[in-house]
Amino acid sequence: MNKLDLTSILEALQKVLPHDQNFIGLHEPYFIGNEWVYVKECLDTRWVSSVGKFVDNFESSLANYTGVERAVAVVNGTAALHICLQIIGIKSGDEVLIPSLTFVATANTVSYCGAIPHFIDSEESTLGVDPKKLGNYLDSVAEIKPEGCWNRETGRWIKAIVAVHTFGHPVDLDPLCQVCEHFQLTLVEDAAESLGSFYKGCHTGNWGKVSALSFNGNKIITTGGGGAILTQDHSLANLAKHMTTTAKLPHKWAFNHDRVSYNYRLPNLNAALGCAQLENLPEFLRAKRALAEKYMQVFQEICGIKFFREPDFAHSNYWLNTLLLDEDYVAQRDDLLELTNGHGIMTRPAWTLMHKLPMFKDSPRMDLKVAESLESRLINIPSSAFL
Amino acid sequence: MNKLDLTSILEALQKVLPHDQNFIGLHEPYFIGNEWVYVKECLDTRWVSSVGKFVDNFESSLANYTGVERAVAVVNGTAALHICLQIIGIKSGDEVLIPSLTFVATANTVSYCGAIPHFIDSEESTLGVDPKKLGNYLDSVAEIKPEGCWNRETGRWIKAIVAVHTFGHPVDLDPLCQVCEHFQLTLVEDAAESLGSFYKGCHTGNWGKVSALSFNGNKIITTGGGGAILTQDHSLANLAKHMTTTAKLPHKWAFNHDRVSYNYRLPNLNAALGCAQLENLPEFLRAKRALAEKYMQVFQEICGIKFFREPDFAHSNYWLNTLLLDEDYVAQRDDLLELTNGHGIMTRPAWTLMHKLPMFKDSPRMDLKVAESLESRLINIPSSAFL
Repeated sequence: MNKLDLTSILEALQKVLPHDQNFIGLHEPYFIGNEWVYVKECLDTRWVSSVGKFVDNFESSLANYTGVERAVAVVNGTAALHICLQIIGIKSGDEVLIPSLTFVATANTVSYCGAIPHFIDSEESTLGVDPKKLGNYLDSVAEIKPEGCWNRETGRWIKAIVAVHTFGHPVDLDPLCQVCEHFQLTLVEDAAESLGSFYKGCHTGNWGKVSALSFNGNKIITTGGGGAILTQDHSLANLAKHMTTTAKLPHKWAFNHDRVSYNYRLPNLNAALGCAQLENLPEFLRAKRALAEKYMQVFQEICGIKFFREPDFAHSNYWLNTLLLDEDYVAQRDDLLELTNGHGIMTRPAWTLMHKLPMFKDSPRMDLKVAESLESRLINIPSSAFL
Repeated sequence: MNKLDLTSILEALQKVLPHDQNFIGLHEPYFIGNEWVYVKECLDTRWVSSVGKFVDNFESSLANYTGVERAVAVVNGTAALHICLQIIGIKSGDEVLIPSLTFVATANTVSYCGAIPHFIDSEESTLGVDPKKLGNYLDSVAEIKPEGCWNRETGRWIKAIVAVHTFGHPVDLDPLCQVCEHFQLTLVEDAAESLGSFYKGCHTGNWGKVSALSFNGNKIITTGGGGAILTQDHSLANLAKHMTTTAKLPHKWAFNHDRVSYNYRLPNLNAALGCAQLENLPEFLRAKRALAEKYMQVFQEICGIKFFREPDFAHSNYWLNTLLLDEDYVAQRDDLLELTNGHGIMTRPAWTLMHKLPMFKDSPRMDLKVAESLESRLINIPSSAFL
């Protein structure tokens, strides 16, 4: 029990993964449908840029699939989250609660608003925010005033929480929504990784006042680079569209813009790719679930490491499959990464926790014991739909 | 002489433009080369996203063509200019001189840095900044201190000037560089519109410490959406690359980022389109110059309006062809816009001047007489390379 059997872990991966490839990436695009047809149509019609039918189609298809009222396509997931925070009114000096265990874009977008990320812990069963622990923490540091949630320790308003569905696995949204309601926090779902993931039968992105999707090359569907803002609120959707297209006021020829805003529109060329990819999402989900089940099988027999399974309340997209080392073996994590990558099977650890990065080291934070533990124990393994 | 002969202007346009189209846009993409070959290669190899050979090729081809040392491809021209300002050190509370006669993105990027746009006048011979008038203005409001250029009136540092090559026509860079040197201002070229435009034999973008290009759908070449940062300085280019790719530190697996930064990378799919487009730039330039010459011919005979020609020192790309009404006829500008657009020939006025937009109305500005005059008299006419 002192040492993890690294060879058996490598063999388990090799048992699941194809043998005819020199290198197996973590998550690569898969084009099996109308990608060529739609992209060629853009070139043939010369509608490759800011407007075009694929942008409109992609937005309505995303709304249909996720069950939200409106989707606004943008240039990437970072831009989507930035606009989410802007349109819910995050201002300079506000605090926004975000997990320390997340990709750096979550924290960066808070900074773009001049706001301060306030780091919160995760729970092991979802890899996302722990609503109960968060509620207890806010009880101890925050005061509910008529205007909102006041951080007594920092003297700043806590305005919102960004809940990240880590590696595609939904956070426990019902109790989280109760915490948000109690403390008057606006919920934003960072659903960058969770397209195709459902919480209690309903697609992620339906709980936040606004939510962000990503279609980067490593995501379950890709547009090259792309993202979307989801919301049930038509006026917020219209504002998102306005803010992502230079806030130009409609006019037959005049250029008037009514606020500082962004050039975040998704080009039609990229939207064309997205339309084709979205058509195949059910097939990708089926294939990825089959892969996850194979991993579950082989890792059942191995001591000291476990395959992360979707929470009970969730139907997850298994975007990035995840192994968790037992606490006893964290010292061997890097050896395992060396061994697997050395054998052409790409693996990687969790992101460095946000509060450890130099630009966020002075940000407020709660006790982050679980996030620290997960960071030391977590390994992502190959997850592409074609595996 | 009281009234402009609108019908003769319409007929002049119709004489130059094709008759077999219901609608002629201002500037539309033109695909006559390897666009589909390269884009298909991206789909076939599945390298559509953040990295790939087309991004590298596009960057080196841009550097070769423009004669700068390095080009860094980004997601659009706005992102390029934002990063230009960041890497030359523009900080919150700084002032940046920009023409009032420009597209809103120029002013927005200053705001993204928390800086204040300070609006300057244009000259009629270039449509861009008037170096002499600027020098005289700075003499009257600014004080040169050891740390830089101090605005006595606002109590802020004036750090940089963004020179916009309006509609592709180069500003008079030599005297402008003298003003920059004298007042210790960093020069940034907003070359979004001037790919293919040369000043005294050398490509625009070579004078700024950093410069920005755009490949939006309406530009001389397009990537759907895209832009690039140009610089002679390798360390600035490396910093631009770092800042546009989440500031991730190289490591075989760890995710460490050393500053708040951006996801501004150009997807390989879009770069593929750009590589093909750039191969045909010489042909586009030839065709656009031929079109401009036809316009010059027909508008020579019409009173009250003149076709804008490149400045003497410039070889311009004639990105957007431009008519200027004589002062006497500005009241008829909108009638002319109505008439031409009503006949399926897209025309438009200049952008609303930046100091008239609500978000910039309190920004400092010099006398803007020439910009005001140009705004009232300027009309852009169809300019696509295939016309």
